[in-house]
Amino acid sequence: MSSRKRCGCLELFHGNHITRHILLIGENMTSDNTQWKLIARPEGEAKRADFEVTSSPIPTPGPGEVLIKNLYMLVPPSMRLWMNEKESYFPPAALGEVMTGITLGVVTESDSSDLPVGTYVNGMGGWQLWSVALAASLQKLDPHPDIPLELYNTVLDVQGLTAYCGITDICDPKPGKTLVVSAAAGSVGSLACQIAKHRGSKVIGIAGGAEKCAWLVNECGIDAAIDYKSEDVAERLDALAPEGIDAIFENVGGEIMDACLERINDGAQIALCGLISSYNNDTTQRTSALMSLVNRGARLQGFLVKDYLHLHGAMLQELQPLVLDGTLKYQVDVLDGLDNTLEAMSRIYSGKNKGIQLIRINQE
Amino acid sequence: MSSRKRCGCLELFHGNHITRHILLIGENMTSDNTQWKLIARPEGEAKRADFEVTSSPIPTPGPGEVLIKNLYMLVPPSMRLWMNEKESYFPPAALGEVMTGITLGVVTESDSSDLPVGTYVNGMGGWQLWSVALAASLQKLDPHPDIPLELYNTVLDVQGLTAYCGITDICDPKPGKTLVVSAAAGSVGSLACQIAKHRGSKVIGIAGGAEKCAWLVNECGIDAAIDYKSEDVAERLDALAPEGIDAIFENVGGEIMDACLERINDGAQIALCGLISSYNNDTTQRTSALMSLVNRGARLQGFLVKDYLHLHGAMLQELQPLVLDGTLKYQVDVLDGLDNTLEAMSRIYSGKNKGIQLIRINQE
Repeated sequence: MSSRKRCGCLELFHGNHITRHILLIGENMTSDNTQWKLIARPEGEAKRADFEVTSSPIPTPGPGEVLIKNLYMLVPPSMRLWMNEKESYFPPAALGEVMTGITLGVVTESDSSDLPVGTYVNGMGGWQLWSVALAASLQKLDPHPDIPLELYNTVLDVQGLTAYCGITDICDPKPGKTLVVSAAAGSVGSLACQIAKHRGSKVIGIAGGAEKCAWLVNECGIDAAIDYKSEDVAERLDALAPEGIDAIFENVGGEIMDACLERINDGAQIALCGLISSYNNDTTQRTSALMSLVNRGARLQGFLVKDYLHLHGAMLQELQPLVLDGTLKYQVDVLDGLDNTLEAMSRIYSGKNKGIQLIRINQE
Repeated sequence: MSSRKRCGCLELFHGNHITRHILLIGENMTSDNTQWKLIARPEGEAKRADFEVTSSPIPTPGPGEVLIKNLYMLVPPSMRLWMNEKESYFPPAALGEVMTGITLGVVTESDSSDLPVGTYVNGMGGWQLWSVALAASLQKLDPHPDIPLELYNTVLDVQGLTAYCGITDICDPKPGKTLVVSAAAGSVGSLACQIAKHRGSKVIGIAGGAEKCAWLVNECGIDAAIDYKSEDVAERLDALAPEGIDAIFENVGGEIMDACLERINDGAQIALCGLISSYNNDTTQRTSALMSLVNRGARLQGFLVKDYLHLHGAMLQELQPLVLDGTLKYQVDVLDGLDNTLEAMSRIYSGKNKGIQLIRINQE
């Protein structure tokens, strides 16, 4: 590894899709492995004091293992949940261990003929510069040369598949149906909006801020967007969907979900992707709003991308061409360096992120 | 109609199934039609002042219509919701009109060859002694002579079908599965328990009071019951279902539902039948408890009996023999006279009712 200069923060735009806050990683980077270990269960937002940052020698792969230079790490809204003692869809991150993270990296040493040096892989590399993993635990990537590598840790991986399976398998969008997406400008929401629109539904997005709403309507081409920060969501839903709501792709929970549930039509399908409003604070739902599920014979279906891995190929088949021809709009917000992961999480909860939040761990 | 004496309240037991609080209806009964009209939207529990009680001549059936002497009226927990301005699964009861009620009656005058005098019918007869309806709007009954008539307005009608479709179509009970039923001693819950048990599941009921719990275990034969009034529901669920919960038949909502949701297994099926805790007061759910639906890829499915009328025959085929041979335990709690309908509703909310609450409107 070369020693590289830290030259301050540069913000680059690649088209209007990827925002890169690029640091040129400087001389305080050594060839050691920097690791962020969870040492306390955070209360509210995760803080620096909940972690210990250590430096140790770069590990050596054992039999059947590879050494991976971690390049990118996803910062999904649910990352905060992994820090709790209570199990979410991952086992809770263990105290004293490297914090859990979904990464994209490149193999730099290999004891596996399946994954030679130079192979790109997805895995659970965690909050660290380098990781060692059994080859069998990694997903081999075959990135298209004209598609930015970041997308294979975002739009064309977890985020794309989450949107794809929730929309296609649960919401069942088609012409004549009205579909609402909450956190619509977010990592999964914006893809959910576009897949539903692509399949002919009327799509209403709910997002925070005029800029995000404008992006959803003008760039992503959905029918309407509601700015929950400045508009009354219930009133706007009444105005925009007087015919009622046939399907919801739900990411948020709390009052916004209640307002949507109260306007569903008979047989409505709600894909419950996440409940971001509850991750830091224990928000509530009005039980009476859930009563709409009874009165409308509606289905609130939780789902996890891990149960839909069989659709990964179908997702790539539908989305990769839309990426290549520029039809699919996305925003990837790259912050540079593991030091910025907590800031990245904070940006998500305050709605400052522009689309999918990614940490660049190492330069390629 | 004969004038009958009011002789005070007599409590009779028919086996241990039907509790009848029988008034012999007295001389203040006239041949007029007594009607309870909703004149105000109740706040909290419905009160006498929310109704006007009027007396008018018994109506005459028009073309295609029949005159029905209303014999029984169901008092389901959801009856309170029909009084709200907001639509539930019925249109809201109109102010100034006879209050909505699901009744069983007998045809006493007929302009329909399909429903000759003496035919028993189910219909929406409302809170009144007599009603007139189009023959086509009524369900003709063929009651078995060895089965008490009350059951055709309860166990073998709405309540039985609700339990049957929620359990069989959504919860999908079978050996090896653990199923929880809330409001388990209630009108639908006790039938849900027994159908699930009959199909081989492990069944845990949640009910209020030691007597109800004993009845569920000793009479209905379920595996265990939790008394939410004296026990910690979450702790008891941990003890009784260390293997987790595979399906829930949910009637209550609020904290009890949260405790159940937090213990579901992957792919759990929750039949959302009602949310009684929210009918008088706006209770809440913890959004984080709903997160279990995501983490477990679980389904919260609201349903209405009206969407399952096609299973009515299948329900009768399964339940009628169980009634005749005494296998199916049920409790029908009959209060006498429309004057007691508000008391009947109050009994439900305070958990004083013993099973399905029915009002006897007229003597047969």
